[in-house]
Amino acid sequence: MPVVQHHVLERLAVDVFTAAGIPGDEARVIGSHIVTANLLGHDSHGVWYISRYGGQALEGYVPWSEREVLRDTPLFRLSDGRGAHGIVALTRAALEAVDKARASGIGMAGVRNVTHMGRLGAYPALIAERGMIGMVWTNTGGLAVAPFGSADRRLRLAPVAYAAPRRNAPPFMLDMTFSVVAGGKIEQKIVRGESVPEGWLVDSDGQYVTDGERYHEQEASILPLGGLQFGHKGHGLGMMMEMIVGPLTLAGCTDGHGGGGGALVTAIDVAAFTDVDAYLDEVESFAAYVSSAEPLPGVERVYAPGELEEQTRKRRLQHGIDVPEPTWAEITEIADRLNVPMPSIAP
Amino acid sequence: MPVVQHHVLERLAVDVFTAAGIPGDEARVIGSHIVTANLLGHDSHGVWYISRYGGQALEGYVPWSEREVLRDTPLFRLSDGRGAHGIVALTRAALEAVDKARASGIGMAGVRNVTHMGRLGAYPALIAERGMIGMVWTNTGGLAVAPFGSADRRLRLAPVAYAAPRRNAPPFMLDMTFSVVAGGKIEQKIVRGESVPEGWLVDSDGQYVTDGERYHEQEASILPLGGLQFGHKGHGLGMMMEMIVGPLTLAGCTDGHGGGGGALVTAIDVAAFTDVDAYLDEVESFAAYVSSAEPLPGVERVYAPGELEEQTRKRRLQHGIDVPEPTWAEITEIADRLNVPMPSIAP
Repeated sequence: MPVVQHHVLERLAVDVFTAAGIPGDEARVIGSHIVTANLLGHDSHGVWYISRYGGQALEGYVPWSEREVLRDTPLFRLSDGRGAHGIVALTRAALEAVDKARASGIGMAGVRNVTHMGRLGAYPALIAERGMIGMVWTNTGGLAVAPFGSADRRLRLAPVAYAAPRRNAPPFMLDMTFSVVAGGKIEQKIVRGESVPEGWLVDSDGQYVTDGERYHEQEASILPLGGLQFGHKGHGLGMMMEMIVGPLTLAGCTDGHGGGGGALVTAIDVAAFTDVDAYLDEVESFAAYVSSAEPLPGVERVYAPGELEEQTRKRRLQHGIDVPEPTWAEITEIADRLNVPMPSIAP
Repeated sequence: MPVVQHHVLERLAVDVFTAAGIPGDEARVIGSHIVTANLLGHDSHGVWYISRYGGQALEGYVPWSEREVLRDTPLFRLSDGRGAHGIVALTRAALEAVDKARASGIGMAGVRNVTHMGRLGAYPALIAERGMIGMVWTNTGGLAVAPFGSADRRLRLAPVAYAAPRRNAPPFMLDMTFSVVAGGKIEQKIVRGESVPEGWLVDSDGQYVTDGERYHEQEASILPLGGLQFGHKGHGLGMMMEMIVGPLTLAGCTDGHGGGGGALVTAIDVAAFTDVDAYLDEVESFAAYVSSAEPLPGVERVYAPGELEEQTRKRRLQHGIDVPEPTWAEITEIADRLNVPMPSIAP
């Protein structure tokens, strides 16, 4: 499989996106976002999307400049993207939240009516890199999760992400759903022909389902975080997020007739609450305390959120990113179609 | 076991607290708080505390008026309680957050150096009863939770609570820890002589522990939410909460040398973001959608957060509250000591 340096992939992504009609500044935002996902090991949100986003742009593309600002207060800006790209929208929203927080101590930005939001963890990280605590809550994603005590699909995968600033290192970063696993993990099992582990999916008889095809046929749902025993916690958190994000972004709550697709970004300016140096010392001391816990047998070490991704990033920055053959073929196809030259890579 | 009407218990609690030296207004806040916990079915935070809080007050009591306000901005007030009662402190903080949110759209209040915080879900509910979304995050509670991949106790039980307003009904309300269970659930198993179910506790060999005594002897830790398979999620959420609450409340992050005991209350004024009637319609429609999911075999129905507690409240308002004999004996003992007459109750 091709192993490609990140800057080569990023240049290729931007060239494809630009040739497909995406304005240069937005093409760069999206290209950087997806290659960063690969660098951090989240290949499900990586260059697999070059052909998809490129193909979608050929059918039409709404730049962020066409958004409608629905609400703008000293603390909060809400934008209707009118179909803008989700990665551009959330990147802009994160920076808007930072601007508001710089003035007020806390800033929020909401978006609705945008396309795929990419890797959610990227946005609080943008905030944390500016010395603030970042949070993104959504009511987006597939309706694939069972509420506690049922197997009906009534809850969205709705990821959330958090980040906190760190001294001389990329931020602490958490990106997760309130289900036991995200949908992509199940798709990976299906693609590889593997069975789905017990504890991931449930059917209407209350039995675990290990056959991924039954998930595709909507005969099985993803369990809320906590599973059959403690799933009231994932269920409760997921429901509270819907009741915050849906109405406040005007995306609406998911109710079987509509709703969903909203994201609410919050920035908390550490400097408005405490001394920034003290903050950085404390979180480092806390992380060191947790990470120095004795690992269980077979476990290498305990990690703080984001540290595993950072290990992968360092490795891939140096050694390049593995691109699976089918993904490379898809990229080649859309590049050829758009007369974008493919980079020459070592075999 | 005695079955006592809630107003009788509340009067008794207030009389004991007042006789023990707690100022009347604070005695009423604490009395109402603990009896409400019983009404909602959370007996672990109920009248069991009459003798405990009363006995502690006899040894000294710090009224909220002696707190020190460490920081006060349009959005945020931080108070050092100097040992004030946690229930009074959090009740006041919730109302402070509401006041700030009424002016600014979002309001926050933090506390540190307070005693037992009681039932955390009470505070966002106070906020939600005033038409706002309420959240309370803490880094308090026992150091009893293992980080993902270890059995060392490096994470606190650190409860969080959320509430959202509801039309003509008590708020939606979620009160939970990011561990699989709270410490009280394990204590209840031990008290009843029952074994602890598999999946709750882990030892340093990575094995589930079912003997509660090994928990008391610190040979077993509570697993993070998600357990051995998905515990990186509870671990990550718990760590992010510490990194927000510890520094921002100046309680400090838990690091083996100190830190902990902070709580951060947030109020989001729905009216500053969207139409309140539209909000109430949407959350009701969403809750109805989720709750109408087909229950699994053996499950009565699917609940929205707080609905089970509300069922219990209605029943106990009418039929009274069961007080276990040992708890009644403890209350009688402190009441006699303080010359507070015990109510006559039907046998």
